[in-house]
Amino acid sequence: MHFISEQHHDDGVLEREFALGEIPGTLWTPGSAPAPLILMAHNNGLPRRDPRLVGRARYSAAQGYAVATIDAPGCGDRPGSASADQARAELRRAMQAGEPVDEIFESLVGPLVENALPEWRTALGALLSLPEIGGPVGYSGWTALGIRLAVAEPRIAAAGFFAGGYVPRAQREEARQVTIPLLFLLQWDDEGNPRQRALDLFDAFGSREKTMHANLGGHVGTPWFELEDGGRFYDRHLKS
Amino acid sequence: MHFISEQHHDDGVLEREFALGEIPGTLWTPGSAPAPLILMAHNNGLPRRDPRLVGRARYSAAQGYAVATIDAPGCGDRPGSASADQARAELRRAMQAGEPVDEIFESLVGPLVENALPEWRTALGALLSLPEIGGPVGYSGWTALGIRLAVAEPRIAAAGFFAGGYVPRAQREEARQVTIPLLFLLQWDDEGNPRQRALDLFDAFGSREKTMHANLGGHVGTPWFELEDGGRFYDRHLKS
Repeated sequence: MHFISEQHHDDGVLEREFALGEIPGTLWTPGSAPAPLILMAHNNGLPRRDPRLVGRARYSAAQGYAVATIDAPGCGDRPGSASADQARAELRRAMQAGEPVDEIFESLVGPLVENALPEWRTALGALLSLPEIGGPVGYSGWTALGIRLAVAEPRIAAAGFFAGGYVPRAQREEARQVTIPLLFLLQWDDEGNPRQRALDLFDAFGSREKTMHANLGGHVGTPWFELEDGGRFYDRHLKS
Repeated sequence: MHFISEQHHDDGVLEREFALGEIPGTLWTPGSAPAPLILMAHNNGLPRRDPRLVGRARYSAAQGYAVATIDAPGCGDRPGSASADQARAELRRAMQAGEPVDEIFESLVGPLVENALPEWRTALGALLSLPEIGGPVGYSGWTALGIRLAVAEPRIAAAGFFAGGYVPRAQREEARQVTIPLLFLLQWDDEGNPRQRALDLFDAFGSREKTMHANLGGHVGTPWFELEDGGRFYDRHLKS
């Protein structure tokens, strides 16, 4: 893991860009060390530089967490793939035409998740070797990748999932094997994500402690107080 | 409003029994005054002395709220009614026999709500005339009564509803007229309360700001942290 640049913020948070082989990432760390770690990813492989993700990451870092994110293969700063570009174009076309999109999402998000998993595990190992990062480890954001990680990776102790993103059938099946504490965040009127599918997914998780927070509004309308609620969820599971 | 007894608790909360005509009630007030008020009631007219309600009331009072509750006509310390006793017996019989219970619930809870409404409004007026109580006013607990109150009573500014209780058809219809901020608390596996009906009710509320917290577990399994989450909901709407 090589640090490429660093930026000191007024709230004591240190923000560093890093490279891990060909994987680009960002790490935010608080003034206090060692800090518990939160891995943070956006649904459907959205870029790690997205302002909403950066905002959440800096909030959590200011609350005493190390937060790390990487770009998935073909996403963000990384070279795109012809097949993913084609799937995204086909997705736009089908949505505009009002055609079913599930199979296109399967062909796009399924491989994204499978390809992202080993890189996130590699990144997790490298991050935990840093002296400024301790356990335990939480996860935040992209539901499909989070399910995959929570099942494959025993070091993940708690996870917050955002319901607004396509979850491939394989991960919907796998949801029953997720047993860590969960906070599941649902936008009640999310335009592109069927509500019933999110409710079914919440029902399917195998966790004994799972909480859903549903708020009125569309995909990007999550109210600000959910950031604080999420913080307290991680505090209960990662700081006690 | 006549105070009958008082008890000082170690956390600075003063607990007083009162009578308002024939209505018996309890008022908890914090050390600081004037305090915002939360009206608190249990679903289906359960007694105001129920330990779960008392626990919630004392928690909120310790957080700086005046909390008041009264027994509904025919409930708690008040003389029972022959028709309600009969409906409750019929309910037990039908439940044991595995028969439908909706119509029995309608005949029991419908009149409970209608009879309780004017008494809660009378109590609200009397409470707001006390110097130790200021506005604004919140509501907590019994969903059906809360819907009725939120629609009829403009002084209610925010409400937390517990989904686990029968909501008569009239209040399910009225839910669209509720426009104040809501926190709706659902136990995902509540034995006696169909989940879909609760989800439909959440969907129906007319409020622009409404949040549902759903947790795994049965009717009485609400996790402790929801008490704190509820406190922050009231803080946002009653203290700002």
